Amino acid sequence: MSGSIGRRKRWRNTAGKFCNMESWRRRFPISIWLPNYCLEYLLRDAIAGITVGLTSIPQGIAYAMLAGLPPQVGLYSSIFPGIVYAILGSCKDVTVGPTAILAALLAKYVAKSPDFAYLATFLSGCLILLLGVLQLGFLLDFISKPVISGFTTAAALQISASQLKSLFHITGASGGTFIKALINFFNNIKTVKLWDTVLGISTIIALLLLKRATIPTSSTDGRVRVVLANIWLYVVRARNALVVFVGLILAYVLSLEGITPFALTGTIHGGLPHFGPPPFSTTVDNKTLNFEHMLQVFGPEGFAMPLVAILESIAIAKAFAGSTPVDATQEMIAIGACNMLSSFAQSMPVTGSFTRTALNHASGVITPAGSLFKASLVLLSVTLLAEAFYFIPRATLAGIIMVAMMSIIDFTIVKKLWMNNKPELAVWLLTLCVGVSAGLEYGIAAGAGADALRALATAARPRLYSQHFKVGNQDCVSLSLQGTLSYACAEHVPREVRARAAHVRVLVLDAKHLRAADFGVFENLVTVILDLEKQKYRILLWNFDLKHQKLLEDMHSGISTRFVSGPSIDQFILDLNTEGMSV
Amino acid sequence: MSGSIGRRKRWRNTAGKFCNMESWRRRFPISIWLPNYCLEYLLRDAIAGITVGLTSIPQGIAYAMLAGLPPQVGLYSSIFPGIVYAILGSCKDVTVGPTAILAALLAKYVAKSPDFAYLATFLSGCLILLLGVLQLGFLLDFISKPVISGFTTAAALQISASQLKSLFHITGASGGTFIKALINFFNNIKTVKLWDTVLGISTIIALLLLKRATIPTSSTDGRVRVVLANIWLYVVRARNALVVFVGLILAYVLSLEGITPFALTGTIHGGLPHFGPPPFSTTVDNKTLNFEHMLQVFGPEGFAMPLVAILESIAIAKAFAGSTPVDATQEMIAIGACNMLSSFAQSMPVTGSFTRTALNHASGVITPAGSLFKASLVLLSVTLLAEAFYFIPRATLAGIIMVAMMSIIDFTIVKKLWMNNKPELAVWLLTLCVGVSAGLEYGIAAGAGADALRALATAARPRLYSQHFKVGNQDCVSLSLQGTLSYACAEHVPREVRARAAHVRVLVLDAKHLRAADFGVFENLVTVILDLEKQKYRILLWNFDLKHQKLLEDMHSGISTRFVSGPSIDQFILDLNTEGMSV
Repeated sequence: MSGSIGRRKRWRNTAGKFCNMESWRRRFPISIWLPNYCLEYLLRDAIAGITVGLTSIPQGIAYAMLAGLPPQVGLYSSIFPGIVYAILGSCKDVTVGPTAILAALLAKYVAKSPDFAYLATFLSGCLILLLGVLQLGFLLDFISKPVISGFTTAAALQISASQLKSLFHITGASGGTFIKALINFFNNIKTVKLWDTVLGISTIIALLLLKRATIPTSSTDGRVRVVLANIWLYVVRARNALVVFVGLILAYVLSLEGITPFALTGTIHGGLPHFGPPPFSTTVDNKTLNFEHMLQVFGPEGFAMPLVAILESIAIAKAFAGSTPVDATQEMIAIGACNMLSSFAQSMPVTGSFTRTALNHASGVITPAGSLFKASLVLLSVTLLAEAFYFIPRATLAGIIMVAMMSIIDFTIVKKLWMNNKPELAVWLLTLCVGVSAGLEYGIAAGAGADALRALATAARPRLYSQHFKVGNQDCVSLSLQGTLSYACAEHVPREVRARAAHVRVLVLDAKHLRAADFGVFENLVTVILDLEKQKYRILLWNFDLKHQKLLEDMHSGISTRFVSGPSIDQFILDLNTEGMSV
Repeated sequence: MSGSIGRRKRWRNTAGKFCNMESWRRRFPISIWLPNYCLEYLLRDAIAGITVGLTSIPQGIAYAMLAGLPPQVGLYSSIFPGIVYAILGSCKDVTVGPTAILAALLAKYVAKSPDFAYLATFLSGCLILLLGVLQLGFLLDFISKPVISGFTTAAALQISASQLKSLFHITGASGGTFIKALINFFNNIKTVKLWDTVLGISTIIALLLLKRATIPTSSTDGRVRVVLANIWLYVVRARNALVVFVGLILAYVLSLEGITPFALTGTIHGGLPHFGPPPFSTTVDNKTLNFEHMLQVFGPEGFAMPLVAILESIAIAKAFAGSTPVDATQEMIAIGACNMLSSFAQSMPVTGSFTRTALNHASGVITPAGSLFKASLVLLSVTLLAEAFYFIPRATLAGIIMVAMMSIIDFTIVKKLWMNNKPELAVWLLTLCVGVSAGLEYGIAAGAGADALRALATAARPRLYSQHFKVGNQDCVSLSLQGTLSYACAEHVPREVRARAAHVRVLVLDAKHLRAADFGVFENLVTVILDLEKQKYRILLWNFDLKHQKLLEDMHSGISTRFVSGPSIDQFILDLNTEGMSV
């Protein structure tokens, strides 16, 4: 009865939400912030947007190349998602664009054809949007923190290792997994190029120094100091653009002298992307693959991309939302729409980027409009500066990626898991090891599977609280059945009942906190109750709810006299004695 | 600390058991019952053994043909497992031999080559033995009663449907699934043969009448009545043999007249089986398959056979053991050894058979020696009577199988599940539907998977008991964290905390019954605590154990002052007030 009322109420709520103006406005957050927009906001959003844009350009190029795509795709992927997110996004700080992990997951498909990238963007977008609309975000609850951490660490290791090739300009492949990348590195270590290495290492050192440097103190007066400090702050925030600029100028000047000591990015096709629907068929090795074949190429591992996109964006939104709860549904709708729509403009899969979101936050963004300024700057760069990007040294981009990866590797969780829960540490290790050896997607699948087994094992061995007590001179034991007893403990519970009943004559099964139990548990309980009674035990079934009582009676009508209810069990035990029980 | 002591103790126990004479004797139950054996036991075991043997012969032939094997294989499979079980079996009633469900699971492999049957017997035996020796029987806890019931029903339906072909002697295949068998039946319904149908239906009616018939009352005196009643009892128990005998005589007499109205069993190669190792390679369609190829043919679905063998034998042992707990480990060792050893004598996979075990029990067997008499009778029949078996009509065997299947179909569980737990009913239905449409193995896999998802969903939404109370004029709420909080509820628990904290100022998190929590739960709890405190809530963390307290402090050192312990929380809440809290 109460279930059907609850269901009706829920339906009415859902229906109400659907017709409610307020909930429709929540789905278009721009309708909430735009009416209150003012000049001060504009100025601060512009500063933040441009700062983020300066990082988006080198990172976009780097991540496109990491995925094996033409560099301009990384730029396109910062423009259109930025515009969509400004309309649908609910978190002012979140910056949407290509990320290293998504690029790494994409690489193996792009190796067959770049068309897979655009289709992956479209399909991921559709799936994320669908999950958002159907409010299925709770499915993410089944990916635990250790799995996310193990996966992220594995991804960072794999991506860093894949950059060794560009950093040292060695020959060979960059490798599909961490292990393969390392093997390739050591196999080709003799082909290391001096000047790429020098530039790459210098880039890394410069980025690390800039990140950690404090504002220089000087002997000048306060005002000049504040100005200097502010300039320094912008230098620090634009450090990615800065190292690229230095590398680019260096390569350009040297090229004027006729020297090209570094591997360069090469030609970038400037201008706007080709607009049109994503490719639903492609050609690989002179064979035409239709949509079905392309889906087969993605396989079940293909689900890793939308999954990771959601996990990244929601984790980032939460990290920067502060005390405001994150509307996960709206975030999924926004990220889904970003991907789906921008796949019509040659975009690779995008999601919230941790480094750029942090930069956005630090630059004092006020509304999602900051995203528009970022998009504009990247758009300008791809139309006006594409030729200059030719000279960006690859080692510089590799350095940028490696520094970004260093910041997401987190080993502190190891100690915490060791302290709290060693099986969780095992799950973390499993995710990491499978991730670095077999591939990132398999790592996340192995981790999630191991977690599910852990949860099942817990459900199979619930703790039953027992208490020995005396009523008169009668030794009794009460056993509390708590929570939900699942089918997996159908053997364990009766075994426990048997074990705890030793040395007493009266056993009380207390179901006050029993929420539900699966059929097998009840069936085996009846068996053990009847069996213990044969052995002259007296058993009282205390505070069972009516539904469970009826079911138990249905299994064996003889036990109906054992059910008792009330705040105290003592009187019932005394009654047993007066019934002439042998003690 | 306590964990490592516990582990050491467990090791010592295991080591102790290993060196203990008593536990070795438990592994050879014959060493327990044989020394006390006496003539009376011998007589009763002989009667029971012969009764069971009379049923084993027709069922063995029928099940071998159901699997697509030569009829004599079903007889071999009753002989050698019977001998092994007499030595290793711990339940006197259990009768080991081929079963209809195992035969049905085997059929699709035998369709390629009979060699798969012997290899399946060997591999199943090895696996079951291994699970027994490693004490991994708890893995069976993850197959719930509804899954077993749904699977059994699907199997009974499929097997009955597959017998329609023989019962009506129609053309076409018997079909790999229930659906296919039905389709084949209706497609070929015009080829129904009159006399097979008459014989088959008569067999079914005769068996059902014999099963339900009561002892005839007569006007003769008491003594004659007792004798008649006893004869009648033996007729009822040997009813399977009886209908076969009648059918056989009928077919033989008619054949002497030159009439063969029924499809007959055909030539049975009498004598002993060929002894030798099971085939590790075979030839299918003129292609040689090596061991690896054969394993590929079995695939993951191949695990269904050992799984079902264990499930059947342990369920049967429990049903007939009465109040003595079943030694599941020993049963697995016995069934494993039965299969492994008898695969050297051309046996198909065997396990405990429900109908024959019930017959054994009803016939008053005293020790597993009854099994030896059964084996001897079957051995005699295969060596002496093989030629006579030629005349057994197939329709009679089909009738026997169908009646056996009727007794294992159980729809009463539907009502019970509907009353107790509708999701479990959904699992039952899923197992049944997938079982009858896609195949039995897939039914069991789908059911077990759905059950695991149910258990995960429960773990994701634990119930937190909250209580509103007043201390002074202070409204408070306490929330009890109970049992094990898994990663899957890492989002749910903080959400609940937030929801329950509405309208009060003091929130008490009571961890008295908190056994363990995954890392993500603690991490999110810290976030929600810090956030609620920003909103001027006061939070007390009551009775956290030291390990959990340390972990939480490690996540945020600021919350260390919130931990309090003791039987009553009131004083701590009053202290909060004197600290100058704004209410």
